[in-house]
Amino acid sequence: MGQTVTEQILADHLVDGELEPGEEIGIEIDQVLTQDTTGTMVWLQFEALGLEEVQTELAAQYCDHQTYQFDFKNTDDHRFLRSASGKYGAYYSRPGNGICHQVHKENFAAPGKTLLGSDSHTPTPGGLGQLAIGAGGLDISVAMGGGPYYVEMPEIVNIRLEGELPEWATAKDVILHLLDELSVKGGVGKVLEYTGPGVESLTVPERTTITNMGTELGATSSIFPTDEETRDWLSRIGREEEYVELTPDEDAEYHDEVVVNLSALEPLIAAPSMPDNVIPVREAAGTEVDQVIVGSCTNGAYEDILPAAKMLKGREVAKQTEMIVAPGSKQASEMLSREGWTAEMMAAGVNFSEATCGACIGIGHVPASDSVSLRTFNRNFEGRSGIEDDAVYLCSPEVAAAAAITGEIVDPRDLAEELGDLEAPGFEIGDGYSPGMGQDDPDIIAPDEAIDDELIKGPNIGDVPLREELESALAGEALLKMGDNITTDHIIPATSDILMYRSNIPKLSEYTLSRVDETFADRALEADGGFLVAGENYGQGSSREHAALCPMYLGVQGVFARSFARIHKANLFNFGLVPLTIDEETYDRIEQGDHLEIVDNVGEGVRSGQETFTVRVNDDWEFTAQLDASGREREILAAGGKLSWTKQHHESGSGAAPADD
Amino acid sequence: MGQTVTEQILADHLVDGELEPGEEIGIEIDQVLTQDTTGTMVWLQFEALGLEEVQTELAAQYCDHQTYQFDFKNTDDHRFLRSASGKYGAYYSRPGNGICHQVHKENFAAPGKTLLGSDSHTPTPGGLGQLAIGAGGLDISVAMGGGPYYVEMPEIVNIRLEGELPEWATAKDVILHLLDELSVKGGVGKVLEYTGPGVESLTVPERTTITNMGTELGATSSIFPTDEETRDWLSRIGREEEYVELTPDEDAEYHDEVVVNLSALEPLIAAPSMPDNVIPVREAAGTEVDQVIVGSCTNGAYEDILPAAKMLKGREVAKQTEMIVAPGSKQASEMLSREGWTAEMMAAGVNFSEATCGACIGIGHVPASDSVSLRTFNRNFEGRSGIEDDAVYLCSPEVAAAAAITGEIVDPRDLAEELGDLEAPGFEIGDGYSPGMGQDDPDIIAPDEAIDDELIKGPNIGDVPLREELESALAGEALLKMGDNITTDHIIPATSDILMYRSNIPKLSEYTLSRVDETFADRALEADGGFLVAGENYGQGSSREHAALCPMYLGVQGVFARSFARIHKANLFNFGLVPLTIDEETYDRIEQGDHLEIVDNVGEGVRSGQETFTVRVNDDWEFTAQLDASGREREILAAGGKLSWTKQHHESGSGAAPADD
Repeated sequence: MGQTVTEQILADHLVDGELEPGEEIGIEIDQVLTQDTTGTMVWLQFEALGLEEVQTELAAQYCDHQTYQFDFKNTDDHRFLRSASGKYGAYYSRPGNGICHQVHKENFAAPGKTLLGSDSHTPTPGGLGQLAIGAGGLDISVAMGGGPYYVEMPEIVNIRLEGELPEWATAKDVILHLLDELSVKGGVGKVLEYTGPGVESLTVPERTTITNMGTELGATSSIFPTDEETRDWLSRIGREEEYVELTPDEDAEYHDEVVVNLSALEPLIAAPSMPDNVIPVREAAGTEVDQVIVGSCTNGAYEDILPAAKMLKGREVAKQTEMIVAPGSKQASEMLSREGWTAEMMAAGVNFSEATCGACIGIGHVPASDSVSLRTFNRNFEGRSGIEDDAVYLCSPEVAAAAAITGEIVDPRDLAEELGDLEAPGFEIGDGYSPGMGQDDPDIIAPDEAIDDELIKGPNIGDVPLREELESALAGEALLKMGDNITTDHIIPATSDILMYRSNIPKLSEYTLSRVDETFADRALEADGGFLVAGENYGQGSSREHAALCPMYLGVQGVFARSFARIHKANLFNFGLVPLTIDEETYDRIEQGDHLEIVDNVGEGVRSGQETFTVRVNDDWEFTAQLDASGREREILAAGGKLSWTKQHHESGSGAAPADD
Repeated sequence: MGQTVTEQILADHLVDGELEPGEEIGIEIDQVLTQDTTGTMVWLQFEALGLEEVQTELAAQYCDHQTYQFDFKNTDDHRFLRSASGKYGAYYSRPGNGICHQVHKENFAAPGKTLLGSDSHTPTPGGLGQLAIGAGGLDISVAMGGGPYYVEMPEIVNIRLEGELPEWATAKDVILHLLDELSVKGGVGKVLEYTGPGVESLTVPERTTITNMGTELGATSSIFPTDEETRDWLSRIGREEEYVELTPDEDAEYHDEVVVNLSALEPLIAAPSMPDNVIPVREAAGTEVDQVIVGSCTNGAYEDILPAAKMLKGREVAKQTEMIVAPGSKQASEMLSREGWTAEMMAAGVNFSEATCGACIGIGHVPASDSVSLRTFNRNFEGRSGIEDDAVYLCSPEVAAAAAITGEIVDPRDLAEELGDLEAPGFEIGDGYSPGMGQDDPDIIAPDEAIDDELIKGPNIGDVPLREELESALAGEALLKMGDNITTDHIIPATSDILMYRSNIPKLSEYTLSRVDETFADRALEADGGFLVAGENYGQGSSREHAALCPMYLGVQGVFARSFARIHKANLFNFGLVPLTIDEETYDRIEQGDHLEIVDNVGEGVRSGQETFTVRVNDDWEFTAQLDASGREREILAAGGKLSWTKQHHESGSGAAPADD
């Protein structure tokens, strides 16, 4: 039977299991990436595992979230990451050099390779045929140590593109359309593989906008085939030799198919406060806009910002609106600057920022209270912008620029008609790229240029907490009952006042679920054990493992949820918290404060493959909860988490992440 | 008798008193400026005074400190400031448009005019012959209402410049040399007026670097005469018609003279942690540098950044060093970008920031722990960078760029010799300026373009607290005993986590003097009254009136100090705290916790002109303290502060700040 592109790459890298959906497979990882808010824990865990040198073809450490360095703890983290990269053999990208996905795309992403990254938008380079997956930091540490990455074999869905985008419709509208069709849960357990005649009409930067935001569908990854567009883009960046042709076999079979007629798309917008709350821009037209931001890993490339720059040239940002442009990489920024576009945008009233994730995670340019912010980002979860009750819309750079010009949401087609002289900027590929692979780049320190050989830890950089082996009896209070779609932003907020404690678990844990219930952390610590209860899609959003690590530190033993987001569920195993699935009726019946006791011997049950556990509530009634876990996940859980498990394996000589082979 | 330039301008604007040093004079104010951390209180007080419209020729509101908008409170403040500017008739400069002093210089500063600003570096446009003085926010509110500004007539000191700067010596070295000679107290009660044949060798941007940093000498203001250089610069910015010739009369008499031989200057550096801790760069050579920042209101002009850009072109920032360039204005940034310099700096590894005060006040790019930061800024007070025990050096952009290239402090002359191909960049005036006066500038909203007619107050914007009339009996504990040179940064820190409460006095007050003693605020509130004890130069540094307002809110009744910084002393009067001077012996003898009781009737004494007050300590011993205050200051103090006093006057119809004339 023929293979999809995804299957071809997986088959090339398979070290364990079979490519059957739902089966756990182990794959070899070629490249890893980490960023500054997850990277400190990645390296602390790498150190705790006793590993000595990066074993993957390539590891890259980016500093992109905390580039403003508003606390010395951020700057200390960057210095630590530089020292860890130097000591262990990773590329180090300096703060201000840009967002990991954009910089990785420019420098290292390669068709046919596997990439594991401790950031949920790692699938970005799927746009040029790389199979890229976001994972928790511990998985990254293990992969860097040479261990395989284990994941449930996803279903491969064919997203068949037909037609061509009409004027003013963009790649962003393709993915917004899919979010509208499929919802934020539509991609869970799936790889979205793009095919069809519409593919060749999209350039690599357009494709990476789509693959980047596939994360919002909950997809394990998103991937495009490679073609002349891919080769052209790689050649512009001086890496044509990285090109590999990747197309699905003619008889490849997909588990599902979604057809998108590009020709029928129009400018779309995700209204507050979920990326799948998508409507045509015209339906939101007239809404006054206080803030417009163009940038992020979704739309922060040179090619993304250029259309906005063209629209703004000779025009002005409306007086009542602030517009910020934050490029995705310094390379993008340098090209825009060299060609005069930055000056034009500044003349139009744009506040031009350094390259940073920044506002996308609530670090800087937090909207005013009761205001509307329009962003070209990928997420608009409530509060993520840094203020509760925010009103954040997601859209293309064209729609953003149109709003900046008028001060209100407007379909750029209608604005063009109104103004008469506003041409559709189209999509133009840059030809001023510097060579990739960190060649001659002062902002990327290659392993052979390393200036540190020892770790430099500032006073805020602490140790990694460990959990003991899973106990036989688990009982405790339902400490908190939550609704559907609780994000990792709810579990551990990423605002700048909190983010700086990412390397300091006791301090960071004080903020656990504070956005849901401010008393939670104190109550959990005091209770010394207990459970979380949640609705569907628990733990969606960013890959941050702190969302499991901090509840673990607080003593939480497990989570009962109607369903789990993929990366977060893996993180729960990795930190020794039992993720148990419950049905709707049970969910409705459990109340916060109930006493829950797992009747079965948990440690033994987890080890032996037991799939259902009986839970007694208040000594009054019982329900059944499902444990859906692979043999490996069960081993990890029983050991008290992946760190303990990997250490045991390593010490017993059967290591999955050996230090010296 | 002939007049100095300062006297000429003062005479032109005098409405009260005589131009005799030490006498209080009242002068008419032509222009005012405020920024975002002091401006909210300026407008809240303007509102509290019942004023209706700006009465000065021009008022300008800048948003420069909080441009990163780390918290919605910052963004709310900006929106409030926009609304206040619109309602009351001020120019509003948007966040990202640049630092008040630089943008004011480019757009509005005019020779012969008076400028009052709620920022201590307001004297910057003295470099083009404007008499510019920093003051507390309340003084700005009153001046905007049409009331005169009262100040003790300063001594005028002749700073006679001879010779010409040699290669690699810069304007920054002129002011660093003066700091070395005169110390941070050397300018207190003085206006530094520059004369001599060396003046014409300095361009306007060089002059404004010197006048800007005259603030670090404690000077009331610094001023240059005007000449063809001034006319040329104004003409480049499209404002030649603002030119007025200003030269001292031939028989003008100065109170003192300091001769500076420009030809003898060499690259200097202020070592940690005081701007007058000046040494030749060569004496610090070899010190490893972790961070280099070029920018600020002292060295953030196009002309300041250009030399660093030229030095970096084709070179690289050392791998172990992070270099940030934060222009002083978007205009500077736009020019650098248009001419390709920004791209060159980025290619060299510079992280190019939006235009902001930022790092200078500890907002962003906080140094790592135990690291060295080299900055072209004007202040290196300990902790101001955002981390205690910092090691911040101040220097010229040339010295900063040299350190960035080598990763250590190096005299650029030595670097040039070592490299062989590094030419002294010289100093080149830009000819790409856009027209000033906010013409065609989308980032400046002129009063006639205002989009708000009502104040927009976010939930963090509170009311202005008021103090009652001064009591007859004052007694209480010596709540805190401090050493010399306590800065307003010590009294109310300006780091971003605290700065956002500038419009919320109860919350902000919790941080009062926390850098000296974390328990202070709680103890002061509990004591319900009491005194501060300090050494020399109490309250130096920034003009922030919160350094008086917050102690007032906490119940502090007065300050015993060996001497006071000028602006802070005025702020103490303005908020009803009694500033009393004590001698060294008394200072040594008072201990924290002593019970202090002013034996005299204070309210009556203050009103009647009493100059010495007897203070009884622990019912055990006595000392005498001096009240050095004008009649007007005594009235204000007795009324409980200037707000109460102005309101009384206004309500009784004898207003100094009438709303409707």
